Amino acid sequence: MALPDYTALALKDLKTYLDEGVLVVLIDRAKHKNTFNGNIADELQEVFELADRDHRVRVVILSAEHTAAAYCSGADISGGWSALWDKDDQQEGGLAHRDGGGKVTLTIYNCRKITIAAVNGHAVGFRSLVTFIAGVGMTALQLPFDLRFVWAGAKLTFPFIRRGIVPEAASSYLLPRLIGQSRASSLFLTGGTFSPNSPQIQSLYHDILPTREEVFPKALALAKELAVHAAPKSVTYTKGLIQHPGDNIEENHLLDSRAIKILASGKDAAEGARSFFERRPPRWQDTSEDKEEWYPWWKRVDVRHRRSKL
Amino acid sequence: MALPDYTALALKDLKTYLDEGVLVVLIDRAKHKNTFNGNIADELQEVFELADRDHRVRVVILSAEHTAAAYCSGADISGGWSALWDKDDQQEGGLAHRDGGGKVTLTIYNCRKITIAAVNGHAVGFRSLVTFIAGVGMTALQLPFDLRFVWAGAKLTFPFIRRGIVPEAASSYLLPRLIGQSRASSLFLTGGTFSPNSPQIQSLYHDILPTREEVFPKALALAKELAVHAAPKSVTYTKGLIQHPGDNIEENHLLDSRAIKILASGKDAAEGARSFFERRPPRWQDTSEDKEEWYPWWKRVDVRHRRSKL
Amino acid sequence: MALPDYTALALKDLKTYLDEGVLVVLIDRAKHKNTFNGNIADELQEVFELADRDHRVRVVILSAEHTAAAYCSGADISGGWSALWDKDDQQEGGLAHRDGGGKVTLTIYNCRKITIAAVNGHAVGFRSLVTFIAGVGMTALQLPFDLRFVWAGAKLTFPFIRRGIVPEAASSYLLPRLIGQSRASSLFLTGGTFSPNSPQIQSLYHDILPTREEVFPKALALAKELAVHAAPKSVTYTKGLIQHPGDNIEENHLLDSRAIKILASGKDAAEGARSFFERRPPRWQDTSEDKEEWYPWWKRVDVRHRRSKL
Repeated sequence: MALPDYTALALKDLKTYLDEGVLVVLIDRAKHKNTFNGNIADELQEVFELADRDHRVRVVILSAEHTAAAYCSGADISGGWSALWDKDDQQEGGLAHRDGGGKVTLTIYNCRKITIAAVNGHAVGFRSLVTFIAGVGMTALQLPFDLRFVWAGAKLTFPFIRRGIVPEAASSYLLPRLIGQSRASSLFLTGGTFSPNSPQIQSLYHDILPTREEVFPKALALAKELAVHAAPKSVTYTKGLIQHPGDNIEENHLLDSRAIKILASGKDAAEGARSFFERRPPRWQDTSEDKEEWYPWWKRVDVRHRRSKL
Repeated sequence: MALPDYTALALKDLKTYLDEGVLVVLIDRAKHKNTFNGNIADELQEVFELADRDHRVRVVILSAEHTAAAYCSGADISGGWSALWDKDDQQEGGLAHRDGGGKVTLTIYNCRKITIAAVNGHAVGFRSLVTFIAGVGMTALQLPFDLRFVWAGAKLTFPFIRRGIVPEAASSYLLPRLIGQSRASSLFLTGGTFSPNSPQIQSLYHDILPTREEVFPKALALAKELAVHAAPKSVTYTKGLIQHPGDNIEENHLLDSRAIKILASGKDAAEGARSFFERRPPRWQDTSEDKEEWYPWWKRVDVRHRRSKL
Repeated sequence: MALPDYTALALKDLKTYLDEGVLVVLIDRAKHKNTFNGNIADELQEVFELADRDHRVRVVILSAEHTAAAYCSGADISGGWSALWDKDDQQEGGLAHRDGGGKVTLTIYNCRKITIAAVNGHAVGFRSLVTFIAGVGMTALQLPFDLRFVWAGAKLTFPFIRRGIVPEAASSYLLPRLIGQSRASSLFLTGGTFSPNSPQIQSLYHDILPTREEVFPKALALAKELAVHAAPKSVTYTKGLIQHPGDNIEENHLLDSRAIKILASGKDAAEGARSFFERRPPRWQDTSEDKEEWYPWWKRVDVRHRRSKL
């Protein structure tokens, strides 16, 4: 594909740029308190799909201006719930509905690069303008990422049962796997507001920083280091193994044996050892985007209406 | 169904009453150190089944007198293990046996309301009367609940391997899911006694209180708040999604999309947003008990002998 | 089988002895910085298979000299990656490869006795001799064990993505189950070096000790206590339930009901209660090795080439 110029993409609600192998994606709706709407959902999918296929992108960071009212203050429901819904879906009837946050979640979760959420503000809704309600800032914009950094003062909430709906964006799949069902139930079934250092939620975060200003630079520093040191194909296979392990330990042994065989027969395993011993940065040659017979080893489920089998 | 008067139920080992949408269930066998027996197992199933079907009940709390010797000191095996077993089951042979604690676990886990265990005393057995042995106070009376509150001084143990049996009451299913297999193995395979603040067990608890007296009131306060603010049908669907997620993230996206579509097309989603903006308590209309085509979306397994397929 | 004399086994890289029901296995390659190679892999499988079938062995501990450079400093790849591979496998082509660390993992995970890793040194590689690379000391030599003790000063790392391969030895199956996918992703996808008390890794450990000297004695003391107090058949069934729970809570209820019925009909359940009340050590009669119709209740997967179905 033609490689995109990320600073020149026609985006309304996001700012993007490439920095030493790291694609930086910033939510750019501060004047709307970084609410989530149909357009930002589309743009996030577009950007993460580009990143997935672009070999120059090793890591993707999502963040926001640390001076904005929030990292994301949730979905804009000033037009009612259904204003957020896909028009075509609605015409096809009840079974066709696909949650917009969930589409974003799937795109980010399936991205073959390392993904980092740098949560440098609240992830709650505001009543001050009667158009904001929380949720998606905790779900699609945090849970499908590989790593999460957060400001210690952030207010975090999964408010769904207090608004008459359910946890969206595949969060009921992700949260119990990420931090266990005990903590997930505490968060989902109280709908309470938690700080990152609360025992209920802290295991969700790779790092918790004292000020809003520190969150993005700290995440970016790790991202840049990984952009150099993490072998792209290793990342892709490792994410595949985490997300799609064997059904039992023996099957997993067969899967990771095969992954090791493929990788150790390539150039990067030798380069990984050599660069380690020579105390120099590695020069990787394999990429995440190479087509090959074996990967992905699981069957992708098509969620489009009339192709899924719910 | 005719709505029960919970203060007038014919119960021998439990005390029950309804308090602002919260069904309070108190273990009332202090003179027997709150041991577990066949009768209390039956009564717990009866009460949680009533709660499941009664739209007035939004939350169920299980607790005990904080002055009792224990929250629950385990099964009374003074008559031998088999005295705890169902007579009919035994006549049908080995495959017919159904663990009594497990029947209680299933009833509580499948209850569509929010369930809270307020563990205001030890969950260990006592040797002082040679009739008590620990276990079920940690398993059926804690693990199937959505939230657990506990006294920081409680002694907690899963003693099964030290008694020649195995973890009962589906605890080998629940504990690893709730807190991860590393912690679950520490608890099950040492059979040791732990305090709530021990790293091995603390993630089991929503809140840990310094005194026995504080546990029930703190749990009740949250229960009453949730009885008002948590939409009943949202609770039921959310519990369903936590307990029965999709087999993969795409399938979960289909499930939660459908749940959101159903709920957002109802009255409570609009009321959830409106009451939030109007800073007033919501007035929910949908209930957990409504029959509908879609829920439950999973297949319930019949565990009765000759109907199950073990 | 003829019972082995563990002090007389023909082992090159391990030292073994039986101490009050505890089989002690010490990595004995200090002059090679306790690196992992094909021979030690074979010896570990041999020893854990013996332990699995020997009724005198109730608990197995793996440890190292606390004065060695490391607990295990990883695989010796001085001969290249493929020098670690099984010659026969390689002749059969790509699908035949079986990761050596994974074979060790499977043997330890499937051992019917309690297994403890006493990690009294680093689990990282060294550059000082250009032959060492980390990994297996964190994976096969820690994750398949039931309990892990560690020195607080140990350096721990899952370096795979920084070496151009993937997490080996079924670690992508085990780590997310043991500590949750959030923590597992932090470890696998940064490849960073962590201390045992770091929030990212601490839930992997049953106990964290301040000095290297304390780790093995503390683990041995618990091992000896469990060798007396843990009923062997209870241990085997409990491990089976943790590793192979029901697909849903109802199925698990059927499984543990059956396990309880079998065990409570035997001698050890009565002895477990009696010894508890009589305040004396139990005298167990059932063993882990007894053949019986029901156990194992799951289907073992054969991972040998041409017998597996990857």
